[in-house]
Amino acid sequence: MKISGIFAPIPTPFNEMEEVDFSHLGENLVRWGSSSLSGIVVLGSNGEFVSLSFEEKVKTLQFCRDNFPAEKPVIAGAGCEGTRETLRLARALAEAGADAVLVVNPGYYKSNLTETALEAHYRAIADGSPVPVMIYNMPRNTGINMSASLVSRLSGHPNIAGVKDSSGNIVQITTIIKDSREDFSVFAGSGSYFLPTMMMGGAGATMAVAAIVPGHCAGVIEALETGDLAKARELQMQLMDLNAAVTTKYGIPGLKYALDQVGFYGGPCRRPLLPLEEGPAGEIRSILRTLGFEV
Amino acid sequence: MKISGIFAPIPTPFNEMEEVDFSHLGENLVRWGSSSLSGIVVLGSNGEFVSLSFEEKVKTLQFCRDNFPAEKPVIAGAGCEGTRETLRLARALAEAGADAVLVVNPGYYKSNLTETALEAHYRAIADGSPVPVMIYNMPRNTGINMSASLVSRLSGHPNIAGVKDSSGNIVQITTIIKDSREDFSVFAGSGSYFLPTMMMGGAGATMAVAAIVPGHCAGVIEALETGDLAKARELQMQLMDLNAAVTTKYGIPGLKYALDQVGFYGGPCRRPLLPLEEGPAGEIRSILRTLGFEV
Amino acid sequence: MKISGIFAPIPTPFNEMEEVDFSHLGENLVRWGSSSLSGIVVLGSNGEFVSLSFEEKVKTLQFCRDNFPAEKPVIAGAGCEGTRETLRLARALAEAGADAVLVVNPGYYKSNLTETALEAHYRAIADGSPVPVMIYNMPRNTGINMSASLVSRLSGHPNIAGVKDSSGNIVQITTIIKDSREDFSVFAGSGSYFLPTMMMGGAGATMAVAAIVPGHCAGVIEALETGDLAKARELQMQLMDLNAAVTTKYGIPGLKYALDQVGFYGGPCRRPLLPLEEGPAGEIRSILRTLGFEV
Amino acid sequence: MKISGIFAPIPTPFNEMEEVDFSHLGENLVRWGSSSLSGIVVLGSNGEFVSLSFEEKVKTLQFCRDNFPAEKPVIAGAGCEGTRETLRLARALAEAGADAVLVVNPGYYKSNLTETALEAHYRAIADGSPVPVMIYNMPRNTGINMSASLVSRLSGHPNIAGVKDSSGNIVQITTIIKDSREDFSVFAGSGSYFLPTMMMGGAGATMAVAAIVPGHCAGVIEALETGDLAKARELQMQLMDLNAAVTTKYGIPGLKYALDQVGFYGGPCRRPLLPLEEGPAGEIRSILRTLGFEV
Repeated sequence: MKISGIFAPIPTPFNEMEEVDFSHLGENLVRWGSSSLSGIVVLGSNGEFVSLSFEEKVKTLQFCRDNFPAEKPVIAGAGCEGTRETLRLARALAEAGADAVLVVNPGYYKSNLTETALEAHYRAIADGSPVPVMIYNMPRNTGINMSASLVSRLSGHPNIAGVKDSSGNIVQITTIIKDSREDFSVFAGSGSYFLPTMMMGGAGATMAVAAIVPGHCAGVIEALETGDLAKARELQMQLMDLNAAVTTKYGIPGLKYALDQVGFYGGPCRRPLLPLEEGPAGEIRSILRTLGFEV
Repeated sequence: MKISGIFAPIPTPFNEMEEVDFSHLGENLVRWGSSSLSGIVVLGSNGEFVSLSFEEKVKTLQFCRDNFPAEKPVIAGAGCEGTRETLRLARALAEAGADAVLVVNPGYYKSNLTETALEAHYRAIADGSPVPVMIYNMPRNTGINMSASLVSRLSGHPNIAGVKDSSGNIVQITTIIKDSREDFSVFAGSGSYFLPTMMMGGAGATMAVAAIVPGHCAGVIEALETGDLAKARELQMQLMDLNAAVTTKYGIPGLKYALDQVGFYGGPCRRPLLPLEEGPAGEIRSILRTLGFEV
Repeated sequence: MKISGIFAPIPTPFNEMEEVDFSHLGENLVRWGSSSLSGIVVLGSNGEFVSLSFEEKVKTLQFCRDNFPAEKPVIAGAGCEGTRETLRLARALAEAGADAVLVVNPGYYKSNLTETALEAHYRAIADGSPVPVMIYNMPRNTGINMSASLVSRLSGHPNIAGVKDSSGNIVQITTIIKDSREDFSVFAGSGSYFLPTMMMGGAGATMAVAAIVPGHCAGVIEALETGDLAKARELQMQLMDLNAAVTTKYGIPGLKYALDQVGFYGGPCRRPLLPLEEGPAGEIRSILRTLGFEV
Repeated sequence: MKISGIFAPIPTPFNEMEEVDFSHLGENLVRWGSSSLSGIVVLGSNGEFVSLSFEEKVKTLQFCRDNFPAEKPVIAGAGCEGTRETLRLARALAEAGADAVLVVNPGYYKSNLTETALEAHYRAIADGSPVPVMIYNMPRNTGINMSASLVSRLSGHPNIAGVKDSSGNIVQITTIIKDSREDFSVFAGSGSYFLPTMMMGGAGATMAVAAIVPGHCAGVIEALETGDLAKARELQMQLMDLNAAVTTKYGIPGLKYALDQVGFYGGPCRRPLLPLEEGPAGEIRSILRTLGFEV
């Protein structure tokens, strides 16, 4: 089964005490579950996974799996700095119901993290994980880029199902698609290069904007599949500003603020992420109005 | 008149004494002139402009304009570190026949080259240049990236005709297209993201591979215009390895070697660029064979 | 009490199963305890803290405190990506006996980690930590540099005792010393700029080489204090190659290998860190021979 | 003859038309000539060499040599992107009176500029230059760092006299001193790490602040030579803010502004460098007042 379509990398909601807010999470899941999303990614970068304890991660994943339509996949972030800890987490998440695990590469010991070390890391995890592994390349956050040749080599492992490439590098994405096996799922990691990735043969996208405007995102694929390139391009263009605001420009505080504006629960982040300031907040409201929301 | 189509950024041929070899240049121009190229770029990065004197630049441009079909544009690289020197060169090149000038941003005084300084630089040049200016964003070589918002602001100047964006950043390219005036020409600066750029509304490309396989490149546009996305994608995929070999991997020595293999004159580079080593040479011959050349 | 002198950032020893090897750790501590070291840092970068669980961290610190001379400080790494989790860990480590906590800055959400966010993060931790906080600036691993002005501002907090600066930037270190309060402890974070830091007014160093050759390191300070600059310089020069081998060149696998050669227990690392290859191993043995070891 | 002592990298003065202002240059030279400077560097980064034509460079150097005390060396910047052009310029500058040439590494074709290419470049220049060559490592501007091992290898060439290292990396500087021949001159490239460089065995410094406060700079060496480390450190600390203001923070516009304040002629820069804004100007005046100037 090839993983494909549009996935929302959902944020983990907190209350004012910075505790996981399962009640609001449940309400969000109902709404995402009935949208055109193909599935969700829990405990990704937008899920503030680095600020959650092991126990919180497992509990949050389990809650999501239990409260999301069974036929739609729930992918869970399992990446840690250590191979051993990543495996331990992947097993716990799989047991708690994860359909696949998303494994971001370690990044702390940069000078030791050669391609040889990274390849051994992923192979060990793929060997030991009870569910398929999706590689997560996020150079902006980890400081390491997983090259197209490394990812293509790893695509040969039967338990590595795909890659979420958040580099934004369309040359790298194109090269991975060219050099990997047919059913290897190459996902855009952000909405700003969603259409280019799909046009070059990508399988889908995991993108923050899909949590806010899932229908709009589905429209891009629809237009592309019906051969209406002009329409697909127009819809993609409309996503650019919102995407930038909730990713590179303002990050998760921006994403949570936008969700709050359109009827989901966003809420505060765990520190060190600070609340959105008023200027950016106004900019996001303005972008949302352009997209038809009354905010 | 909007600049569009496929341009080859031609290398400057040298003899074994590192002098400009006009005889071989003439032969190359005949062949490029009768190909499906829309035009050529002289004195770009591939033209080793940083290793040519002011006089050599003007003479080389003049020779190219005189030996290339009059109806096809010849764009000339005019970028220098100083505003004053760039203007002086732009005027000399225009007088020698350049149809437009390609102006790479200065990059030496990085901490002073704010967007304000770069905007003033380009406006001064556009004000004074007798021919249209094309911005050249080449962060890999200059160490500075010209942001989408800066380029879009500059697109408001009537004598700035377009941008050659060599960042490879499809998000940036998409944003420039979205935010610039309708007839502003956005060019892919390398063949590896040619199709994605065209699909997002780009006007063309200036790419090293077009000097080697102009017909193949023209095929991509043709397939795209006839709505045959699968064919366009296949042709783009076939360009990837050759493009990498003659740009990011081996640079101009790779490009000149490839030209030598397929019947053009490539010849040596000026130092500090060293001749291609045997390993990369073999790799390039192998790639060319895959593309149907008998080498 | 100003923290000063030479601290060894000790590695966490593992057995072949990658479990913490307390028996060998105990033997190492006896030897370090009777050396000229002023103290040790546990759970720093060399301690592979990112690959240890919360429980392992607390247990390891407690073991070290219990098995190291009571009059010599034991500093414990407490940095996590989240403010909340860092505070929880700092409290647990303090309760387990840590004399101070070393807090590396978070680095994952780079674009949100402005100086404002980092300052709030450190102030919250310093407010809540039962023991003094030492800032740990490690840009090579976190991808973020804490500027001199940020560190100097933080030096105003009464519970922030100093900084371990591993940037290797002597200009930054000099500026911090110049702009911080008199009794703020500025530590070199690596042995390669130990003497320059001390000469500019630094309080000490936390450096991997101190775990291997503590006496040699103490000699540098001694020579400096007796005004024998030539001798201090000579001793510093002799440290350069060993320091490079066990830090920037080969990292913790190099450090553990070197320890194994000179009578300590080094042992394996947790993956993704791979065992040292034979070439680097030979290089380290050769460097150690130059320093007088029979290996 | 080992090049040593304090050199001022003098700015090239321009009038309001951006033409070289020889009259004011002459006045500045009289004053620098009677100061405690060991010599000057003309056409360095502070000399805006990248914005001068070949002819302007030769004429400016000749003027400086003719108007500076004969017993004090005048070093001239000769670095260009091409090996051939660098050689041509080095010969012209030597003929015009340069005592040595300072050669910054090329930086445009970054991916081709391997250590092999850079070594061949410098050897060819050293072979052909009539006067000694000084390597100029300026990673902040060129985007390339020349490693300690490359510089040490090049120190074996009899016509390569030294290096001006503007990396600010004291570890690299220490390693170069350790691994190069005895009479190889290692110069700090900026005033912010002047004392650390001298203490580790450096031969001198080429630093912008020396153009403003040459006597203060000479005091640092004097204190160091008389064994008064505390005094040397205090003088170094006093240089930090001024040095930052006229280099990393505000660059040449800052340096020229400061010169204007203290009785030299600074004047405008060539574009793209913009005039200093009022905020930074006030900051520089304030720093100068702290150093005892009435401005």
